[in-house]
Amino acid sequence: MRSSEHYIGIDLGGSHIRSVVARDDGPIPRIIGRDERATPRSGPDDVVAAIAESCRASRAAVNAPVRDIAAVACSAPGPLDHRGGIVHEAPNVVGFIEYPLGPRLASALGLPEIYVDRDTIMAAVGEANAGAAKGSRNFIYVTISTGIGGAFVIDGHLLRGAANTAGEIGHIPVALEGPRCGCGSYGCVESLAAGRFIAEAYGVDDAARVYAAAASGEPRAIAIITRAEQALGNLAIGLANALSPALIVVGGSVAEHEPEHTLEVMRRAIAARAFKVAAAAVRIVPAALGRDVGMLGAVIYARERRAGRDEWFR
Amino acid sequence: MRSSEHYIGIDLGGSHIRSVVARDDGPIPRIIGRDERATPRSGPDDVVAAIAESCRASRAAVNAPVRDIAAVACSAPGPLDHRGGIVHEAPNVVGFIEYPLGPRLASALGLPEIYVDRDTIMAAVGEANAGAAKGSRNFIYVTISTGIGGAFVIDGHLLRGAANTAGEIGHIPVALEGPRCGCGSYGCVESLAAGRFIAEAYGVDDAARVYAAAASGEPRAIAIITRAEQALGNLAIGLANALSPALIVVGGSVAEHEPEHTLEVMRRAIAARAFKVAAAAVRIVPAALGRDVGMLGAVIYARERRAGRDEWFR
Repeated sequence: MRSSEHYIGIDLGGSHIRSVVARDDGPIPRIIGRDERATPRSGPDDVVAAIAESCRASRAAVNAPVRDIAAVACSAPGPLDHRGGIVHEAPNVVGFIEYPLGPRLASALGLPEIYVDRDTIMAAVGEANAGAAKGSRNFIYVTISTGIGGAFVIDGHLLRGAANTAGEIGHIPVALEGPRCGCGSYGCVESLAAGRFIAEAYGVDDAARVYAAAASGEPRAIAIITRAEQALGNLAIGLANALSPALIVVGGSVAEHEPEHTLEVMRRAIAARAFKVAAAAVRIVPAALGRDVGMLGAVIYARERRAGRDEWFR
Repeated sequence: MRSSEHYIGIDLGGSHIRSVVARDDGPIPRIIGRDERATPRSGPDDVVAAIAESCRASRAAVNAPVRDIAAVACSAPGPLDHRGGIVHEAPNVVGFIEYPLGPRLASALGLPEIYVDRDTIMAAVGEANAGAAKGSRNFIYVTISTGIGGAFVIDGHLLRGAANTAGEIGHIPVALEGPRCGCGSYGCVESLAAGRFIAEAYGVDDAARVYAAAASGEPRAIAIITRAEQALGNLAIGLANALSPALIVVGGSVAEHEPEHTLEVMRRAIAARAFKVAAAAVRIVPAALGRDVGMLGAVIYARERRAGRDEWFR
C-alpha cells in the first residue's frame, strides 16, 4: 500500500477564499481540513495574506505541518500565465493586474513553489480525473458562479491558445449591448448571467435574492433572470455549433443552486436552436465535484502536475 | 521532374457554382480552365446537374478528358459528413437536408469518388498550404460571404468536433434578438452580417448595394451596416477571448470587397474590447487565395487527401 500524501488546494474566487488539506488516497482526494473566508477587496497583497492565513487554518485543524505537504495548487480567476504564476487581469478580484500571485504566495507560505492556474482549468482537470468528465477526452467545462468561465479539453489536452486565455467563455459577447463587464467590454455573457452581475443589476449583494424575487413574481427580477437565461442560451448554442463538444460539464455555485435557470436553459436552447447534428451529439451534465470542485480540482491538479502527467498542462 | 497532374476543384456556394481544372505544378496549383454559373434554387438534384455541367465546361475549355483528372473535390456549405459526403443542412442552398452530395456527384461526373468537405475547411487547407496561414499550425479561418463560416486549425489539425460542425462560427449567436437565420435560430452572426442577410434586410439582392447606399449616407443602410459591424465585432472578440488564436485569416467575397467594414472592424473590436493579452497575441490578416480560395482550396484539399496526408482530415 502506497503511503498517502497531503496536498493543499486553494480556490481564490471573487467572493471567497477557500483552502483545504486533502489526503491523496483515492480517485477523489479526501478533504481532512478546510477553511473559508471572504476575499479582501483592499488589494492583492491583502489577498495573498488572507490565502496564507486560510492555509494555516486548514493545516492547524488537522495538525499538518508544512513539511508534510507534497504540493500546493491555487486556482485563480482571469487570464493568467500558469508557467510564471502571473495573473494578467482578474476582473472580479480588486487589483489583480499583472500580479505575480505564484511567487508571492510561495513566499507567504514558505514553500519553494506553488502551482497557479485558472480556476476553470483546475476544475476541468478535477472533473476529468474524478468527476463528470471521467474517461472523456473531449469536453467543455463551464462554470456559472460569481463570474462565468470555462475550459476546453480537446483530444485529452487542455486548449491553451496563444495567450493562454482559451476557454474564457465568460467573455464571449452574446448581446449587441448591455452593462459594462468587469473586463471593460460589454455584452459578455458574464456581464448578463453571472451571479455578481445578476445581483448588481437588481441592486442587491447576492444573486440568490434575485432568483427568489423572480420566483415570487417580481417583474424586475423576472426581467433580469430572463435576460440571463437568454445570454446563457446564446452561449450554449455558440459552443455547440462552433465547437461541437461531445460533453459539456456545468459547475459553479449559481449552476448548482439554480439548475433550472442555468443547465436546463442551456440544454433547451441547444435542442431548440443549435444545428440538429450538433445538438444530438452533445450531453450536458452537472459537475460532479460540487461546491468543492475548486479545491478538489486544485488538489488533483497538484497531484497530476507533481507526477509529471504534463499532457494536461503544456 | 515529376509530371504535373490535373485536378478539378468545385466551390458550391449559396449564390454561385464555380469549378476549375488546375495543374498541380507548384505550391499554388495553376488554374487552366474555369466555369461559373448561378446555383439553382429548384432543389438539390438540379444543383448536382449544374455542378456536373460546370465541370464539363471547365474541362472542355482546356480539352481535359475525365481520365486525366487525378481527383475531384467539392466544397459545400453547412454541417456535413465529410466521410460519407452527406450534407446535413445547408441553410443557404435550397433543399440540402441530409443530401448525399458526394455519391450523387460522383455518379453525375462518372467518377468512383469525389471528396466533399465544408467550404471553410477546404479554404483553411488551401490557406494553410499555399496562402496567408502558410507555416501556421494554429489559426482560425473566417469567411464573410453569402454566409459566414470558418474552420479551426489547432496544433496542425482541423478541429472537427463530435458532429463535425466545429468551426461553424456563423451560427454563434452574438445578439439576444434579430431576424430569423437560415439555420432556424436567430441572433447568429450570419443573420446579421452575412451578405445575403444584409441584402435581405435592405430589400435588395446584393449586399454591395447596401454598402454603397451606406457610403452615400442613406440612414437605413447605415443602420444595417452598423449592426453588421457590431455583430462581426462580437464574433471577433469571442474568438479572441475564448480560443486565443495566434492568427485569424479572413476571406470571402464580402470581406474581400469591404475590408474596412469587416476585417478592420474585427481588428478594432479586438483591440478595444478583448483581453489585452489575447489581443496582443493575435494577427488578423486577409486570405491570400482571394476569390479563388474555394476552388483552389478544393484542388489543394484533393491533392493532400489523395497523397494520404490525413493529419488534416481525421
